Amino acid sequence: MTWAPVPPGSGFGIGNLPYGVFVPPGGRARVGVRIGDHVLDLRAALGEEEFARASLNEFLARGREFWTATRRRIVGLLTDPEQRDRLVDVLYPVSDVVLRLPIEVADYVDFYASERHATNLGAILRPDSAALLPNWKHLPVGYHGRAGTVVVSGTPVTRPCGQRRSAAGAAPVFGPSQRLDVEVEVGFVVGTPSALGRPVPVEDFERHVFGICLLNDWSARDIQAWEYQPLGPFLGKSFATSISPWIVPLDALTAARVPGPPQDPEPLPYLRDSQPWGLDLRLEFALNGHIVSRPPYAQMYWTPAQLLSHLTCNGASLRTGDLFASGTVSGPVPEEYGSLIEITWNGAHPVRLPDGGTRIFLADGDVVTLRGTAPGPGGATIDLGAVTGRVGPAGVHPR
Amino acid sequence: MTWAPVPPGSGFGIGNLPYGVFVPPGGRARVGVRIGDHVLDLRAALGEEEFARASLNEFLARGREFWTATRRRIVGLLTDPEQRDRLVDVLYPVSDVVLRLPIEVADYVDFYASERHATNLGAILRPDSAALLPNWKHLPVGYHGRAGTVVVSGTPVTRPCGQRRSAAGAAPVFGPSQRLDVEVEVGFVVGTPSALGRPVPVEDFERHVFGICLLNDWSARDIQAWEYQPLGPFLGKSFATSISPWIVPLDALTAARVPGPPQDPEPLPYLRDSQPWGLDLRLEFALNGHIVSRPPYAQMYWTPAQLLSHLTCNGASLRTGDLFASGTVSGPVPEEYGSLIEITWNGAHPVRLPDGGTRIFLADGDVVTLRGTAPGPGGATIDLGAVTGRVGPAGVHPR
Repeated sequence: MTWAPVPPGSGFGIGNLPYGVFVPPGGRARVGVRIGDHVLDLRAALGEEEFARASLNEFLARGREFWTATRRRIVGLLTDPEQRDRLVDVLYPVSDVVLRLPIEVADYVDFYASERHATNLGAILRPDSAALLPNWKHLPVGYHGRAGTVVVSGTPVTRPCGQRRSAAGAAPVFGPSQRLDVEVEVGFVVGTPSALGRPVPVEDFERHVFGICLLNDWSARDIQAWEYQPLGPFLGKSFATSISPWIVPLDALTAARVPGPPQDPEPLPYLRDSQPWGLDLRLEFALNGHIVSRPPYAQMYWTPAQLLSHLTCNGASLRTGDLFASGTVSGPVPEEYGSLIEITWNGAHPVRLPDGGTRIFLADGDVVTLRGTAPGPGGATIDLGAVTGRVGPAGVHPR
Repeated sequence: MTWAPVPPGSGFGIGNLPYGVFVPPGGRARVGVRIGDHVLDLRAALGEEEFARASLNEFLARGREFWTATRRRIVGLLTDPEQRDRLVDVLYPVSDVVLRLPIEVADYVDFYASERHATNLGAILRPDSAALLPNWKHLPVGYHGRAGTVVVSGTPVTRPCGQRRSAAGAAPVFGPSQRLDVEVEVGFVVGTPSALGRPVPVEDFERHVFGICLLNDWSARDIQAWEYQPLGPFLGKSFATSISPWIVPLDALTAARVPGPPQDPEPLPYLRDSQPWGLDLRLEFALNGHIVSRPPYAQMYWTPAQLLSHLTCNGASLRTGDLFASGTVSGPVPEEYGSLIEITWNGAHPVRLPDGGTRIFLADGDVVTLRGTAPGPGGATIDLGAVTGRVGPAGVHPR
């Protein structure tokens, strides 16, 4: 039991303790952990200089043993009643602080690991051919995104402009995207680097990856459709990628680990893992406060350990702060799809909102919020927090 | 005239003065400019702290006026005989120093701006359809690469492993790439950042871009061919990208500026530039010391100013240290192609080396060297330096 105030039913109990970067009133950015509806200043609590920073990267670089030892120390402090008087002054209500982007993102990679999502997109975009491309069940398809436009939850997202075609064969026009979409994803944060030329074996996932966040891979479908051949998505994605402010450590997800789905054909040896790295995360996509879908993570075809092994199998090195994402999480039924293009089936079934409005894609002023939970120890719930963003009109610059 | 020693015919005269990061004997990494076969320690020469760094980024962030003023000061020092005695001790022979990666790369983007290269690749890889895809003349096609594996000239390149298919329809196998290639490119280094949501207009190119380098976009064609649908190149590229150690400032390239080729159809307004930003760079691709081709840069279809405007037209922000590359530079004839897959036409015409050997793709132990020059002021030549790398066998780790 912790002496810190944790409201009943909170998913931010002593079994969670996610890390973030916050600015207290009148202070400077620093690293904290969330407990209940408060954030504990780790520089003050632990006295270590790597927490007096505006990102988690210095802490992340310390590696698995230090991460686990730090977690143990924090649990010790928060469960020792004698620490209360010392720490209560450095325990801030979350509502009083500003949450910052928790990591300096090194490289950002996005995968495409949901079989249902890949099948849906194939059926919608290439109706005349097989929905899954021949490579899909042999390797986790992925690509590099723009690290410099990864933003923290709450950052306004300006509707992007770009080239699009009004009809096949028509000349392209330039203007605001008409098909702005979301992708409900989970991001994985790399802590410790690896050497160039040395692949990271699938069983080393836990040595390198610190934790997870929620991620919204905002997507302009019209820009993407016109630009993506033959080198893949570029400006249809690079205008913004939002992540949740709290990085939940893998150490908090022990009870959430499940076997991934059966894989047929059997993957090549470098992708075979003896450890279960499926994760029973339950996600939620809300549009203007209305829940539109509940994508389940557990049935993702490729596990994050497989994604990491694939990402490095050519010798590509890892850096502290690398972020790789799962790709859109879509379950078997429309109520579990992770993007509007799937939920509306490219416009055939618009989403109806409680205010009477309908959506195929996002309108200016729409607020998108992704949330998530995982099973925690002893029947507790681990809250993954939320990633939210309001769509602003094209050409109106919030900064 | 400079008092510094510049050998006759050197392309590193007073009109060039490229910037790099070097480690002098027994010292620490710092910023210098090259003059002749020497490098001048800028911290010592100018007394500014941003040159006492292991990358150019702090200098780059200062912006166009500071870059131009610094160049003027350096020219002043190197042409003032009274400075000789003070500076001769901080002028190191290039052969005595170690050259480091000159920039901390923020995001790395690679374009596809040569019409001949795109046409060649289309004809080789998709012989049954039009060589240029419908979008190609409307927008500069590009994608994000891996910033963390951009390495400086001289870094050994380990042959990557990956999945490839031996034949269409066959199951993939995992192993060393059998089709390791080079791409002769030019890289552009961003100095000053831009705000999220605010496109950088084409006429602001010079405000944001500091200079250029040579770039070898090593490519594993077999890995790339199997993985790239539908999200583009990933592991076929991400194992290494080599750049030259000297960043040549745009200020040194005034005499190299030429109009780009005619563009038909006329680009959309955000891609129209009134300033000529074609660059008359003459490149050279040598394999084991034997010149294989001489790609000309001047006829690249999209200018670097257009590339930058496109990259940001969706509101994507720039950071100091962003690197974007032209894509493979290929001229009209095979002697001007910038990759082995084009030069050998996918194996139909192997390259013959003076030692009697032939190559379709690179063999272990091969040394690839790209060089380049540009016309300088008053008939002088600007040397762009060289980017070199030796191919090491798969699974043998040099570090």
